[in-house]
Amino acid sequence: MGKVICIGLGPGDPDLMSVKAHRLLTNARHVAFFRKAGRKGKARQIVNGVMPESAAEYPMEYPVTTEIHFSDPEYNRILSEFYEDWTERLAELSKTDDVIVLCEGDPFFYGSFMHLHSRLQGKAEVEVVPGITGMSGCWTATDMPITWGDDVMTVLMATLPEEELVTRAKETNALVVMKIGRNLPKLRRALETAGRLDDAWIVEQGTMPGQQVRKLAEMTDEVPYFAIVLVHGQGRRP
Amino acid sequence: MGKVICIGLGPGDPDLMSVKAHRLLTNARHVAFFRKAGRKGKARQIVNGVMPESAAEYPMEYPVTTEIHFSDPEYNRILSEFYEDWTERLAELSKTDDVIVLCEGDPFFYGSFMHLHSRLQGKAEVEVVPGITGMSGCWTATDMPITWGDDVMTVLMATLPEEELVTRAKETNALVVMKIGRNLPKLRRALETAGRLDDAWIVEQGTMPGQQVRKLAEMTDEVPYFAIVLVHGQGRRP
Repeated sequence: MGKVICIGLGPGDPDLMSVKAHRLLTNARHVAFFRKAGRKGKARQIVNGVMPESAAEYPMEYPVTTEIHFSDPEYNRILSEFYEDWTERLAELSKTDDVIVLCEGDPFFYGSFMHLHSRLQGKAEVEVVPGITGMSGCWTATDMPITWGDDVMTVLMATLPEEELVTRAKETNALVVMKIGRNLPKLRRALETAGRLDDAWIVEQGTMPGQQVRKLAEMTDEVPYFAIVLVHGQGRRP
Repeated sequence: MGKVICIGLGPGDPDLMSVKAHRLLTNARHVAFFRKAGRKGKARQIVNGVMPESAAEYPMEYPVTTEIHFSDPEYNRILSEFYEDWTERLAELSKTDDVIVLCEGDPFFYGSFMHLHSRLQGKAEVEVVPGITGMSGCWTATDMPITWGDDVMTVLMATLPEEELVTRAKETNALVVMKIGRNLPKLRRALETAGRLDDAWIVEQGTMPGQQVRKLAEMTDEVPYFAIVLVHGQGRRP
């Protein structure tokens, strides 16, 4: 009997994965990972040169990403079927050997693996290895602490309505915004309204070779790639 | 010329430190770490058996922890002097060799190193290696994802006023509360008022040998040790 083991790979630099994830990976015989159809997959790219070439690879290609809005019941039906299908395949594989599932960042923090994790209960033994979050990689890249003393930190998705982004940006000390992409203009307006734009940073490809750290106010109109927006807390400090 | 390199050690299990932190540690010649006077120090304990016995150790003992309240100017003066002193000593050491500073969790996330980091600017070359946060270790220990879909996550210190804890617990999807200790009774009342107590978990010594995961409502009056309280988000899931 094997297990399905989801390992958090951390923010992108392979050197930042945990000793445990690294060891599991170098001994892996079956490696599954999510990716967009036609792409190599970010998680898979992180482990280039770490996982053995002899390992069997199982790319789990999303049947839909942004072509259908997530409020459409069809989106739920298609994705649910996809997760069910891979649940069965991974559970079957784990009957004879361990299966490693790759996950960027930390699996239980907005990761896709959770959709398999809930479905695998009762069908396979499952283990999750935490990882350094993308946001930790990004605030470290700014070379400034994200929180001090008793700062309140809020993590938001830029997909939320503009009004909610404004209120929450106003009411927190430290702020982390993820899922930026095409929501950037909305997020900029929200941060400006909340009076936080001048203190906001955008980190693209944090800890990776293309890493870029900029003040959000100075960014032009392009759509950022693997980006996180940060406003650092300014709490108590002796 | 050396550097002052602060490495995040992760939540406690030495196997969860990053490959980079592990490599820096096994080659370390100078290792500094914070601890309460008279204690071994949690960060130091995590690296038992990983750092070489030959390395010189620099325990940085807090001159004050809870004996004086942080609102007292004397608290600030004493701590500030302590940080200034160690800034000079680490900067001096780094003139000839690298100095590794140990930090539990992730250094820029409520870590003590930030007080040295800001003071070391212009005096030494400084590098920070991110780590897995204590909260990631704790939510992984509950075996449940902390956030789904567009969940908002809020991180609070239990030292905040009860009223603020209530409002913020009400207004967020996922919740993480740190610095629990003697603030537990206040936090419990706040979560009860906010209607979140029944969904709250308390994780003590997450990822370490003494790990304990309990529903907060079922916990008796003891003061928890290295604990984090969590309320999981319940967002969108296909």
